Amino acid sequence: MDVLAQVRATIDAHNLMQPESCLVVAVSGGPDSLCLLHVLCRLRGCYRVQLHVAHLDHGLRAEAAADAAYVATLAEQWGLPCTVGHEAVRDEARAERRSLEEAARIARYRFLARVARAVGAPAVAVGHNADDQVETVLMHCLRGAGLAGLRGMERRARWPGETDFQSLKDSGLTLIRPLLDVPRAEVEAYVQAQGLIPRLDVTNLERTFYRNRIRHELIPVLESYNPRIRELLHRSADLLADDYDYLQQSLAVCWPELVLAEGPQAVVLRSTAFRALAPSLQRGALRRAVAQLRRSLRDLSWIHVEQARRGALDAPTGSTFTLPAGLVLEVGYDRLTIRPAGPPAPTPGAILMVGPERPLLVPGAIELAPGGWVLEASLHEKWPAGGEAEAAAGGVCLDADRAGANLRLRTRRPGDRFQPLGLAGHSQSVKDYMINAKIPRAERDHVPLLVSERGILWIVGHRTSEIAAPGPETRRYLCLRLVRPVA
Amino acid sequence: MDVLAQVRATIDAHNLMQPESCLVVAVSGGPDSLCLLHVLCRLRGCYRVQLHVAHLDHGLRAEAAADAAYVATLAEQWGLPCTVGHEAVRDEARAERRSLEEAARIARYRFLARVARAVGAPAVAVGHNADDQVETVLMHCLRGAGLAGLRGMERRARWPGETDFQSLKDSGLTLIRPLLDVPRAEVEAYVQAQGLIPRLDVTNLERTFYRNRIRHELIPVLESYNPRIRELLHRSADLLADDYDYLQQSLAVCWPELVLAEGPQAVVLRSTAFRALAPSLQRGALRRAVAQLRRSLRDLSWIHVEQARRGALDAPTGSTFTLPAGLVLEVGYDRLTIRPAGPPAPTPGAILMVGPERPLLVPGAIELAPGGWVLEASLHEKWPAGGEAEAAAGGVCLDADRAGANLRLRTRRPGDRFQPLGLAGHSQSVKDYMINAKIPRAERDHVPLLVSERGILWIVGHRTSEIAAPGPETRRYLCLRLVRPVA
Repeated sequence: MDVLAQVRATIDAHNLMQPESCLVVAVSGGPDSLCLLHVLCRLRGCYRVQLHVAHLDHGLRAEAAADAAYVATLAEQWGLPCTVGHEAVRDEARAERRSLEEAARIARYRFLARVARAVGAPAVAVGHNADDQVETVLMHCLRGAGLAGLRGMERRARWPGETDFQSLKDSGLTLIRPLLDVPRAEVEAYVQAQGLIPRLDVTNLERTFYRNRIRHELIPVLESYNPRIRELLHRSADLLADDYDYLQQSLAVCWPELVLAEGPQAVVLRSTAFRALAPSLQRGALRRAVAQLRRSLRDLSWIHVEQARRGALDAPTGSTFTLPAGLVLEVGYDRLTIRPAGPPAPTPGAILMVGPERPLLVPGAIELAPGGWVLEASLHEKWPAGGEAEAAAGGVCLDADRAGANLRLRTRRPGDRFQPLGLAGHSQSVKDYMINAKIPRAERDHVPLLVSERGILWIVGHRTSEIAAPGPETRRYLCLRLVRPVA
Repeated sequence: MDVLAQVRATIDAHNLMQPESCLVVAVSGGPDSLCLLHVLCRLRGCYRVQLHVAHLDHGLRAEAAADAAYVATLAEQWGLPCTVGHEAVRDEARAERRSLEEAARIARYRFLARVARAVGAPAVAVGHNADDQVETVLMHCLRGAGLAGLRGMERRARWPGETDFQSLKDSGLTLIRPLLDVPRAEVEAYVQAQGLIPRLDVTNLERTFYRNRIRHELIPVLESYNPRIRELLHRSADLLADDYDYLQQSLAVCWPELVLAEGPQAVVLRSTAFRALAPSLQRGALRRAVAQLRRSLRDLSWIHVEQARRGALDAPTGSTFTLPAGLVLEVGYDRLTIRPAGPPAPTPGAILMVGPERPLLVPGAIELAPGGWVLEASLHEKWPAGGEAEAAAGGVCLDADRAGANLRLRTRRPGDRFQPLGLAGHSQSVKDYMINAKIPRAERDHVPLLVSERGILWIVGHRTSEIAAPGPETRRYLCLRLVRPVA
């Protein structure tokens, strides 16, 4: 199949083109991107797309300005709009402590996304070819990747910098690789046959020493074992990509049952549901949680997720395990929390208090923590209308006279005891109560307690005490209402 | 971790031991099997298993008899029962046109299974180590394997020669690999530390030139890219094995819905259900069908299954695609048939006729094909008791007088027409009827037709004609009953 036919087949099989839209084409000036641009020029009519050339001058080499001028001139000759950008990649690499290659990559994708947004393009095309795919698969293989790495690059991908799972909050920008089924030799033959003159040096900018070694040393060694190795690895990656997609779909199906809470600070999974999953989906769930919390540009090696997964199955409550990207997995009673390392974030929605003891005026209101829950207190001559609703929403009604004077809110102290309602007047240590109630260890020092001169009246959000329970003789009701913070 | 501790960990994590049972240990006399036997001797008490040594003399080398004597003597010294077998592998390889290595492998597993059965052992232990696993993964990688190959060897496997799917009809015999997490270097150190003297040459028997090249040439090259490559590939294989297991479980869940019929001659899948599957499971379903029909000793390269899969999605009816192991996929109207290449096997349960036209006597019976369905004819003065049941079972009741004389059975002829009941007396060609009824092309010439002097009365197993339909005026009923062949 010639290059044009192969690119058409790839575009059609993977639905890469959005008709009547604009497509940004990343053009470095090397053979791949020149071939890509030329082929897309020939195909743009049949897919009814407008092309827009984008070139980033990384400022890394003496010839960079000449490369940029070359691409701009070519675009003009071919009658295509073109945006040339400039980035001080070297400074950025230093500032961000990244390798030059990584910094260049980040800058490039940032630039391409900016151009796409500016011209209203839903997609950007890049020039990775079939040999790039094989090298990528081998690089993943050499670092012990799982399916996510061995499947190689996608022909149609969500924008990098947002992982697979971020697609849930789709940025709408797509990266396409129409040349991914064209071997490098055919790209080069096409470039020559069409009389295109690539800026030969520019390709090396994007290639590390490591990748070059794989290309020039490892692949020839592998070909001595199997002359068809490139084709086989390329097709193998496609099969594995389908397996990976199926696993992701399966995970998406069970995710709602699995997740107790998810937010920008933490993802909380139900232990029971997690343990019931197949190991493959357990790893997938941890990967997904990490990806939701950290937008990693690079596909990480996932082998060390395994220790955390095993911990999630049988480590004692309170254990934490290191995950990639500065995250940890914390094993709770009934939950697994994936969160940044360091002091734990509270359970989403937990009613917690920050600061010293404070008096509670009646009527009055206290904000338990900055931006957190508010406790409102009010006095009623009879059981208030909607009192049951209050209770259902986590509030309570107490006997105002039995409650006693000097109402205040504080957190627990060593030796605190109270008489939980329903324990027939027996008292229990607050500590034991919290353990039994499966309040996460890290939250126990922040649970508000409503106290008076008579003792602990209410572990706020949890159990009330026998002391101030209303009864038939109650004449005045102290009504306490919890108001959820505005999200 | 020392070798003993590692083997214990592997046994416990993968539940390799069945307490109070006998375990056959395959001992070639090389370092791996000596180490395995020694470790199992030390562990047998804590797992409460009896060991039985098995050694096969392949008759391939001059030292073979000495190796066998060495293993027998060692077993005796260690107080273990031992079975030594002899096989003329070279003759068998020649007769079966197999490579020596393949023939040796087949003979070995056959021998081990025989010993296991003779001593009542539910499992056989073999000495593959962690380096063997890495080499296996690389060999699969080099031939472009999918997940099934990249997952490497299992620590606990169904008996080879029966594939994964044959487990459905479990042979009950298990192959275990307790050394699979122990690197070769540690095996060798253990053997030396314990003063064991391996028959060094024997290991080479099982190693091909290809595998030796991978061990001595390719792995050192890969280590120059990543010094931890062996560990990484080993752990990577474990992750992929879990992914593979999950996919197999998912396939097992949808298999009953997917399968129209399965037997030793063919597996028939429903096209609609097949098309609705994810591509990953579509491939899995084809693999499973092939594995059920052919017990392949070796895990084949599955890349060429892909063409058949695509064909199943959109090729025209009647197309066939080559599958591994001499099988083909045939695309039907509503079904996909996986069967041996050559003339198609009939749909399981199809009512087909073989041979020339034959008279049908009433009362009487005809066997439609040797060992096939039987058609029984009887005459009744009134609508027979159970007539509805006959109809439900594929039989029919006709008006005996309207049916006419000279009843006989034959297959279709060019130009045959009949008046299907319910078409208001309009006639239709038998050919069109068969096409509309989605009778597979290959079966159409074998569908029995019941005819009389008045024409075609019944396409047997399908529609009756208007001609002989019973009505209020019917006085005598011709009852036709289909009796299923004994399976």
